[in-house]
Amino acid sequence: MKKLLTSCLALLSIASQADEGMWQPNQLPEISQQLKQAGLKLDPNDLTNLTGFPMGAIVSLGGCTASFVSEKGLVATNHHCIYGSIQYNSTEENNLLRDGFLAKSFDDELQATPGSRIYVTEEINEVTERVNAGLNESMEGAERYKVIDQNRKDLVSECEADDKYRCRVVNFHGGLQYFLFKQLTIRDVRLVHAPAMSVGKYGGDIDNWMWPRHTGDYGFYRAYVGKDGQPADYHEDNVPYEPKHYLKVNKASVEDGDYIMVLGYPGRTNRYRVANEVENQFTWTYPHAKTMREDLINLIKSNSEPGGDARIKYESTLASLANYAKNYGSMIRSYQKGDTLERKQTLEADLTQWINADSKRKAQYGNALPGLNKLITQSQTHQSRDLILGYMRYGALYNSANRLYRWSIEQDLDDAARKSGYQNRDKNRFVQGMKTINRRYDEVIDKAIMTTLLSDYAKLPASERLASLDKFFGIDNGADEAKIAKQLDTMYAKSTLAEQEQRLMWMEKSAQDFADSKDPFIQLAVATYNDRKGLEQSSEALNGEIQAYRPKFMEALIAYYKDKNLPVYADANSTLRITYGNVKGYSPQDGLWATPFTRLEGIAAKNTGEVPFNASDKQLSLIANKEYGDYARPELGSVPVNYLGTLDITGGNSGSPTLNDKAEFVGLVFDGVYESIIGDWDYDPSLNRSIHVDVRYMLWVMEHIDGATNLIDEMDIVE
Amino acid sequence: MKKLLTSCLALLSIASQADEGMWQPNQLPEISQQLKQAGLKLDPNDLTNLTGFPMGAIVSLGGCTASFVSEKGLVATNHHCIYGSIQYNSTEENNLLRDGFLAKSFDDELQATPGSRIYVTEEINEVTERVNAGLNESMEGAERYKVIDQNRKDLVSECEADDKYRCRVVNFHGGLQYFLFKQLTIRDVRLVHAPAMSVGKYGGDIDNWMWPRHTGDYGFYRAYVGKDGQPADYHEDNVPYEPKHYLKVNKASVEDGDYIMVLGYPGRTNRYRVANEVENQFTWTYPHAKTMREDLINLIKSNSEPGGDARIKYESTLASLANYAKNYGSMIRSYQKGDTLERKQTLEADLTQWINADSKRKAQYGNALPGLNKLITQSQTHQSRDLILGYMRYGALYNSANRLYRWSIEQDLDDAARKSGYQNRDKNRFVQGMKTINRRYDEVIDKAIMTTLLSDYAKLPASERLASLDKFFGIDNGADEAKIAKQLDTMYAKSTLAEQEQRLMWMEKSAQDFADSKDPFIQLAVATYNDRKGLEQSSEALNGEIQAYRPKFMEALIAYYKDKNLPVYADANSTLRITYGNVKGYSPQDGLWATPFTRLEGIAAKNTGEVPFNASDKQLSLIANKEYGDYARPELGSVPVNYLGTLDITGGNSGSPTLNDKAEFVGLVFDGVYESIIGDWDYDPSLNRSIHVDVRYMLWVMEHIDGATNLIDEMDIVE
Repeated sequence: MKKLLTSCLALLSIASQADEGMWQPNQLPEISQQLKQAGLKLDPNDLTNLTGFPMGAIVSLGGCTASFVSEKGLVATNHHCIYGSIQYNSTEENNLLRDGFLAKSFDDELQATPGSRIYVTEEINEVTERVNAGLNESMEGAERYKVIDQNRKDLVSECEADDKYRCRVVNFHGGLQYFLFKQLTIRDVRLVHAPAMSVGKYGGDIDNWMWPRHTGDYGFYRAYVGKDGQPADYHEDNVPYEPKHYLKVNKASVEDGDYIMVLGYPGRTNRYRVANEVENQFTWTYPHAKTMREDLINLIKSNSEPGGDARIKYESTLASLANYAKNYGSMIRSYQKGDTLERKQTLEADLTQWINADSKRKAQYGNALPGLNKLITQSQTHQSRDLILGYMRYGALYNSANRLYRWSIEQDLDDAARKSGYQNRDKNRFVQGMKTINRRYDEVIDKAIMTTLLSDYAKLPASERLASLDKFFGIDNGADEAKIAKQLDTMYAKSTLAEQEQRLMWMEKSAQDFADSKDPFIQLAVATYNDRKGLEQSSEALNGEIQAYRPKFMEALIAYYKDKNLPVYADANSTLRITYGNVKGYSPQDGLWATPFTRLEGIAAKNTGEVPFNASDKQLSLIANKEYGDYARPELGSVPVNYLGTLDITGGNSGSPTLNDKAEFVGLVFDGVYESIIGDWDYDPSLNRSIHVDVRYMLWVMEHIDGATNLIDEMDIVE
Repeated sequence: MKKLLTSCLALLSIASQADEGMWQPNQLPEISQQLKQAGLKLDPNDLTNLTGFPMGAIVSLGGCTASFVSEKGLVATNHHCIYGSIQYNSTEENNLLRDGFLAKSFDDELQATPGSRIYVTEEINEVTERVNAGLNESMEGAERYKVIDQNRKDLVSECEADDKYRCRVVNFHGGLQYFLFKQLTIRDVRLVHAPAMSVGKYGGDIDNWMWPRHTGDYGFYRAYVGKDGQPADYHEDNVPYEPKHYLKVNKASVEDGDYIMVLGYPGRTNRYRVANEVENQFTWTYPHAKTMREDLINLIKSNSEPGGDARIKYESTLASLANYAKNYGSMIRSYQKGDTLERKQTLEADLTQWINADSKRKAQYGNALPGLNKLITQSQTHQSRDLILGYMRYGALYNSANRLYRWSIEQDLDDAARKSGYQNRDKNRFVQGMKTINRRYDEVIDKAIMTTLLSDYAKLPASERLASLDKFFGIDNGADEAKIAKQLDTMYAKSTLAEQEQRLMWMEKSAQDFADSKDPFIQLAVATYNDRKGLEQSSEALNGEIQAYRPKFMEALIAYYKDKNLPVYADANSTLRITYGNVKGYSPQDGLWATPFTRLEGIAAKNTGEVPFNASDKQLSLIANKEYGDYARPELGSVPVNYLGTLDITGGNSGSPTLNDKAEFVGLVFDGVYESIIGDWDYDPSLNRSIHVDVRYMLWVMEHIDGATNLIDEMDIVE
């Protein structure tokens, strides 16, 4: 921690823009004045101690955030973060997903879906020097990429020598800094409680990213360890983990205007991308990707009956395709209505002027932005091809064959030299991936997807195509959809990769076995390997070259902001961050104000009786009879369900506890509003709003619907 | 007026429910306390004088309301109320509808569409005794209907002896009272000013009934009279009418919470319908009528290309069909979500209990509700048939032939004995109707509509069909759509009724000429006349019977409310009313608040460049540069565009001036919000909101975009 506190970012100034910012713990002393002004009652310095309170109570689930809320390792997070584990334990007769689940005692707790982990960040150390060791100015991009990649893998490997830990080297500010994160990894995770889907996913995909919202998006895990207190694989003799710190639950919750903060692991933002990237992303990438997703959705739907076996297998794929089609749609719309690009261009002009105003600065940073821009333009040259080849991963057999063949090739190398994703540490996840396919695969649909994508591919200019892929499908001699479809018919009929045991069996085979195989998808993978590897290498080389410019650009930008007394937070990168702000409504449109709280009555008003608006009769009756218990808020005249905050969050923050000014648990963040989706690129204080489950709604459902009084008793509830 | 003031309604008590109520002028002294409490600064008694201020400044356009806003007869109303006159004066080269129109001097003013009238209500007298003269308890329904109908026609005829006046006998409280309205009729109406459609109809049908709203729905007429000051037909020597009173325009407009009132001519509400009628209307009539309208919309669209000649002819029909399909949809939804029926049933149970609690009351009112209910159930017996036959009026040739034949038959009677709509006083409008058809007719579409409706008709049980219509189309021997279509092909090919001169020529023919005609639609009209007349007579007889019960039911209800000290306003019936309330937002949904004002910036945010969101570059540039002139409201930081009020309005109120507490003009009411559409049946104070053009927006556009300074100078603008 000490190292982190003295890092160059600690130099950054204290002026801050309200609410915007995903701050690294070590930055908080620098913005302590703002934190206090916003209402924080703790000493900001307390938030820098990863193993102290409250940071020690915050954990990652890998993709989601969670928090300890009892001394017995009870973990609160979002319903959508434990969705897989509920589904895993559901059967047709005992549909936990639909009906909810409550373990009334420790013995009743169920094993989470295999591979579930709880990560407790114990150390963060800057490793920039180690990552950059061996680099020099004259290096080519490919070599630069390779040196950095190897240094990172070595650092991880050393750190993971103790197998209780999972480690990551993370890039900050586009490679200006690197930090090594060391996380205690709890491997025995159990499902404790989930409300019925009609609470936990009320509103479903229709209300996703929307306000007004009425979703009880919460659920509970428990962390288990061996009797020695150390992480262990699942075993019935394991005991609940006793965290050093856990959060008190404040049932008074919050009011309009109150200070709130979220500690969590936001996944990825792009706030410092240059104008060139922004423009291309919003005018080319998102529109094309949106169309691609919509095409795939139509394709899947037209090849499967609603409620049928095939459709059920693709529901999750459809949801994900639709989710991001909607996401991209919102971003395109916000971009068109807003001035993101103009402000970005103005910033770059101002920055350039500032750099050129000083000869030393000009010498140091003068070539950063022009050099970066040139490389970025270069990276866009093949984007039509890259988009199509990228979406081909939706072809399950094609993708499996490629990944399995790569696995066999990488196995011939020393573990340290293997590609990330193909090392020993990745094997479990790789196996899980190969197993998952069966639940998400239908031959007719898979074939339809490949037919469409290969037909799109065939329309690319010859210069953009891969000789080996062309040859395999006879595209070099002119190809039409019918011809491609016919060849795919034969391939699917002959391939055995749709069988799980076949896929797992291929993990044990040598590269030569692949070369000898008669399986058409294996043959395709082998035939195209060199070409695909060539693309990967070009991309890595380009990234290596960008690595020579982006850190310098970020250094210039940070220096420029410093000159203006403005602090700089790094883009989100799945590392622990703090965002603070207030409970606050917003105007989604002239003439409308989104009020900061929704109420129980809104659930009844939305209810149609059909999924996803199918509250239980019990819940509807409690609402109709105003049986609010202890949880009504007088000025609302009801129990608050969800609330809006100004916090700067993104995917990965899901499940993060929402804390009040004393770092007490007052809810869970689970979404942002539609107008703030573009926030991943550009934070707008007037439109950026986080959506939180109110702790009062959570406790009301637990007490009055699910009878989860054992958990309420277990938690430390204050007022 | 004196008579009106001492009518039985004046006995009604003074307790009032906030904001609900369309009050007759003579009722205002009874609710003066509430008016003052709400903020009215005038003496409520002043509002009872029809020829005093401000009532004397309020006029009807027939279907819309308007007001005098200068001593030179300048009339302000909604853009959508003068739409026809703007369209009438538009040509392809000089598209006033698209571009707007401003007469910079009196000489530049244009004749409004032929038939345009301005009605100034001068007298209202109760005529209940005269209307009921000759009735007796034992009369059959048909006879009762006939006596009332004749008495009413006689009253109108006497009143219209002076041809400056147009008169109407209007039914209040379902026939409990009748009033004779005498209106000075100004026949020379001229178009003075209209903003561009991109202001006056901004948001178009998409925003219709919606909030947030940004429509500049205003425009100006001027009333002209002969040099003698008396109404006269259009003549270039006519002079501007000088009204006794006109409204001052208060450019300060209003603030959130301010008292506002609307004086106008609301068309029709159904607040006192019994549960039986309400349930049938919302569970049968509206759902079936909505489906019927949607089917006709699809039919018209599938038979015409967008932008093509046929589609253009049907745009107005499509808009009207869609308008009410949306209207019905909202009402069905509100009904399903609300408790309208339950409250109605409770009221009837309470009323019945109250009646039965007193033997005198029981004797007087005991049979009113049961008797009414029986007749209402009877009136629903043939509703499937009635719906289909009703929608057949969309078949232009079918409808014209029926109406022309009826015209010829009625001409054989003395004028006083003729059916309303076929008297001498109706001739001009009848001719206009026959002329209008040409602009709204396409053979292919007209035929498709008739084919569909006749096929629907053919599916009715035989008992519900008309023998003559069956015979004409061979439906009695089983008919399918193809057979009907074939016969219609022949009919349309042979008929000449699509030609305007043919239709007008038939107005001069005798019934015998019709009987001898070879025109297939004339033949159809003649063949089915007796059957259709039979249905009309049954309906009139039933209405006559209902006339024996509904007034008694209303009398009971009024007595019941009086007993509870609650005032009763009559259902809207296109007569002059006052509604008062406040500027106020509302919650359309839990978690949202519709703020009471929209701003100029909302226009820019909605703008797409495409109709109906196509503000002019000039307007967008003024907005972007915040050139608000004198019209910004500091707390909004912009010019207010539209605002919300709690006023109880309905169709017919369109164009009504919105007045402040001193009866100064502060805007124009032009719509209600989506959630208040069901208000025609059931007023909900939490959801019922009127939408007004803010006078500031009107003046801002007039001054800064259209340069209508001559009109601003002409009006008496105060602050």
